[in-house]
Amino acid sequence: MINLVILGAGNVATHLAKAFSIAENVKLKQVYNHRPENLLAFKSIAPTTTDLNQLEKADVYLIALKDDVIAEVAGLLTDNAALVLHTSGSVHLDVLNRFKNHGVFYPVQTFSKKKEVNFREIPVCLEANSAKNLEFLEEFAAKISNKIYRIDSNQRKSLHLAAVFVNNFTNHLYSLGAEICRENEISFDILKPLIRETVDKLESLTPLEAQTGPALRDDKQTIARHLAILEPKRQKLYKILTQSIQEFNGKKL
Amino acid sequence: MINLVILGAGNVATHLAKAFSIAENVKLKQVYNHRPENLLAFKSIAPTTTDLNQLEKADVYLIALKDDVIAEVAGLLTDNAALVLHTSGSVHLDVLNRFKNHGVFYPVQTFSKKKEVNFREIPVCLEANSAKNLEFLEEFAAKISNKIYRIDSNQRKSLHLAAVFVNNFTNHLYSLGAEICRENEISFDILKPLIRETVDKLESLTPLEAQTGPALRDDKQTIARHLAILEPKRQKLYKILTQSIQEFNGKKL
Repeated sequence: MINLVILGAGNVATHLAKAFSIAENVKLKQVYNHRPENLLAFKSIAPTTTDLNQLEKADVYLIALKDDVIAEVAGLLTDNAALVLHTSGSVHLDVLNRFKNHGVFYPVQTFSKKKEVNFREIPVCLEANSAKNLEFLEEFAAKISNKIYRIDSNQRKSLHLAAVFVNNFTNHLYSLGAEICRENEISFDILKPLIRETVDKLESLTPLEAQTGPALRDDKQTIARHLAILEPKRQKLYKILTQSIQEFNGKKL
Repeated sequence: MINLVILGAGNVATHLAKAFSIAENVKLKQVYNHRPENLLAFKSIAPTTTDLNQLEKADVYLIALKDDVIAEVAGLLTDNAALVLHTSGSVHLDVLNRFKNHGVFYPVQTFSKKKEVNFREIPVCLEANSAKNLEFLEEFAAKISNKIYRIDSNQRKSLHLAAVFVNNFTNHLYSLGAEICRENEISFDILKPLIRETVDKLESLTPLEAQTGPALRDDKQTIARHLAILEPKRQKLYKILTQSIQEFNGKKL
């Protein structure tokens, strides 16, 4: 039985607590957060505390807090035998190096509290300060996910950057698409099957192979028609993305 | 019974011919293309011809050809009683105005010949030169799709532009994400559940509400770390997208 304490009460902590609370051979002993109101949602699945001095003894402390408080809260942990983990995509392993046993447990997903997830399908990227800890961490992660990857701190930094491109930036392009629709009294629903198919294609093609559109074809007439109806700031974005497609796919094809 | 002739043998023509060949009260009388080898795949579902002088008489001629040959091929059609349609997102209705009855039948999807689609789920945007033709066109489109929209030529131009943002440009961001993974020996599969969830969120949130990430939080440390590991061209793209998120969401929230 692995005894677990989770520190944090945000989206990541919420989904991790749910998944581990029903995992085999794991006991979720406690959830910590400094704000009592944030702990209400956890009370049905584990004991909670707002006091770091009252932390239960555990085998694993999983810090699922904001990037900029990980080091500070870790500095207040006193159990030096346990494995101490953080869940951040962009914080180095070394921030935990005052602990003999430390590692990273980074689930690659965008979580919302309201939306249920199937943790078994969520990729979890692992790193630890020793081969032995990494092996233990793999067993621990396998309790809730089928998709375990070994990713070191440098790779994780790049992975987090790639995630910004495919998640944050694409979502912003959806915003701009929705705005163009709104301005022209067109339902954004018309574009949703297209958006879904763009993603479905990734199952059978690389994105390089799946690329289509006026930029790829160098269809100057259509590009000119599009630029003519865009406001200056979006024109700039359209041009730089068109150029990027032409350079990237021209180089690769 | 509506008698139909399809002109074209590309991806759009292929999926339209399949869908209409099994639609109730529609008879796919013929498929035209100037290259006989392109017609082979159609022989099992309809008679074919490579000669515009041999076109069958029909109620509807559906021109699913490349944008730049629509006007030329339409100019060679002689049946002035029929309804003549094109399928382009970016060509004006007026290109067909030598016909008494003309319209646009624009399916908003990215088609691949190999990949089956459920046409019932594909939004079809309709426009016609008269209210009567538009009503007829709605009945005709409903034979294969449940998602019928009235969209005029100006709206369609904007819709096509929005489609470039949400399909071509997002796919390019997937390419860049995949490239960052490749350069760092990370499996792109790690990002696929995240990509899928980004799309799934659009079912319950607007993209504006769904926006997350360092740009939105104005997390300068993370942004600086990301810029430090990007090559100059991608830095430029990262900066302009970050700025665009901050301006767009800052203005709206």
